[in-house]
Amino acid sequence: MENHFADRLTRRQRQLGHPLCVGLDPHLDRVPPLFRRGSMTPEDPRTADAVEAFLLAILDRVAPHVAVIKPQIAFFERLGWRGLRVLERLVEQARSRNTLVLLDAKRGDIGSTAAGYAAAYLGPGAAIRCDAMTLNPYLGRDSLVPFLERSRRGGEGLFVLVKTSNPGSGDFQDRRLDGGGSLSGAVAEALAGEARELRGPATGWSSLGVVVGATYPGESEKVRELLPYSLFLVPGYGAQGGSAKAALRGFVPGPDGRLEGGLVSSSRGILYPPGSDTDDATRWEQAVSEALERSIDELRTACV
Amino acid sequence: MENHFADRLTRRQRQLGHPLCVGLDPHLDRVPPLFRRGSMTPEDPRTADAVEAFLLAILDRVAPHVAVIKPQIAFFERLGWRGLRVLERLVEQARSRNTLVLLDAKRGDIGSTAAGYAAAYLGPGAAIRCDAMTLNPYLGRDSLVPFLERSRRGGEGLFVLVKTSNPGSGDFQDRRLDGGGSLSGAVAEALAGEARELRGPATGWSSLGVVVGATYPGESEKVRELLPYSLFLVPGYGAQGGSAKAALRGFVPGPDGRLEGGLVSSSRGILYPPGSDTDDATRWEQAVSEALERSIDELRTACV
Repeated sequence: MENHFADRLTRRQRQLGHPLCVGLDPHLDRVPPLFRRGSMTPEDPRTADAVEAFLLAILDRVAPHVAVIKPQIAFFERLGWRGLRVLERLVEQARSRNTLVLLDAKRGDIGSTAAGYAAAYLGPGAAIRCDAMTLNPYLGRDSLVPFLERSRRGGEGLFVLVKTSNPGSGDFQDRRLDGGGSLSGAVAEALAGEARELRGPATGWSSLGVVVGATYPGESEKVRELLPYSLFLVPGYGAQGGSAKAALRGFVPGPDGRLEGGLVSSSRGILYPPGSDTDDATRWEQAVSEALERSIDELRTACV
Repeated sequence: MENHFADRLTRRQRQLGHPLCVGLDPHLDRVPPLFRRGSMTPEDPRTADAVEAFLLAILDRVAPHVAVIKPQIAFFERLGWRGLRVLERLVEQARSRNTLVLLDAKRGDIGSTAAGYAAAYLGPGAAIRCDAMTLNPYLGRDSLVPFLERSRRGGEGLFVLVKTSNPGSGDFQDRRLDGGGSLSGAVAEALAGEARELRGPATGWSSLGVVVGATYPGESEKVRELLPYSLFLVPGYGAQGGSAKAALRGFVPGPDGRLEGGLVSSSRGILYPPGSDTDDATRWEQAVSEALERSIDELRTACV
């Protein structure tokens, strides 16, 4: 399957030598002066134009150096329909450059509603066609079915929340179950059969991945045992306090001996690095490129 | 607090004598011939116009008779940015007629992302300003905080998934926990303090509500014990097989002795009733009005 997400991602990452994913979280109050237009309030139609210009400039910087970007749809929804139009254009631009797009949407719903979400973002005919998306498992395995069907047909990637990076992730995800194990472990176990089934022919990695926060590295090894073929989406690298070593704890040696098996996402550290709060285009480019290079170097070193 | 959601909803329901909420799930292949335009594919820009005309006509029929409508955002996202523009116009229309809008979005995310979702849909300055929305608790209590803060300030309603109406809801929600109880029970317990805090001055009902499916009535009484002040959003009435009696099982007698304490949602039964698949405007209106009347009568009777 030519478009198998895990195969495409892993191959590109092997070429690049690192698993960095750039998260696109356009906070309105942090858009650099270089791109700001009008009042920068959500009501102002120029705000969406500013966000679009900013993100396309980021894409210009990062597309040659990373395998995948991860737009967080909440920040686009914050701008209403104009925000979704920006997301559509951004995703098209990224895919036209062979940069994979993982939509961070954490959707979870039932029956025809889940099918609606799957059709909105994955596969031919999607409104905003992405290569992969994140999902929430609370509603149960049947809520994942329309997404799994799509992945079976077209190879799209799915990342199900297992253990998130926020302090409150302990409230329910860590709950011990009668009979042993935690809720997050039960979610991981429930995915094992389909994760095996959705392995890619080229690399053996599965298009059914999971979200495992970098802030709780102990969990990573447990989830890796349960899901040997699933890519880990590791948020919380950089700004949220996770180190490169911690982020890679569930990764395993690939054919060249370097660690692989997931993607490590950094958003704020690359979108808003020191020195980027400027209206000077050259300085801005330099600040972003340096931040990108630093993150890549750190992860590349940690993969060895 | 003038705009307290639970107060507004409950007072209007007492006037109307029933808890029916009309769910707006615009399935493209079910839009009646009367409203269809062009190919009705998501790619065709005329499709959004057709959906808008259909839903505004539904709103005309139902606004005088129900307290609240519940648009399911997945079906709008299915149409990309044009779909979100339809949702924006629909919500404005509904609110201008004093029909409450509960957005079925089931969002759940962390920190600034959760704040982004809250700002997108609730309170002054929202992109699509609704009166209430549904939330997913898997990420933990801190993921609910930005929504709770907004409700504290402006009275907006929140409905957290506790026990959903799909068969797979048993996979995780019913898991027994070490020390007793189920996961859905643990979620309900975690909400008790804030539910009490967000009670309305007029009716005592809380703007922090929960989703409890009509297909598992046994759960309703358990959740009611844990959350005596929370409104229940009960999906799955009608099409999904729940009866009026079952839907009202967690409801309690109000000041006039009639059952109250939630809203019972029906979507397909009212949007696509028998006889509505027509291009005759009069017949269509009749079919929808009859279906609406039938559901209202059934629920009104069951409330006594």
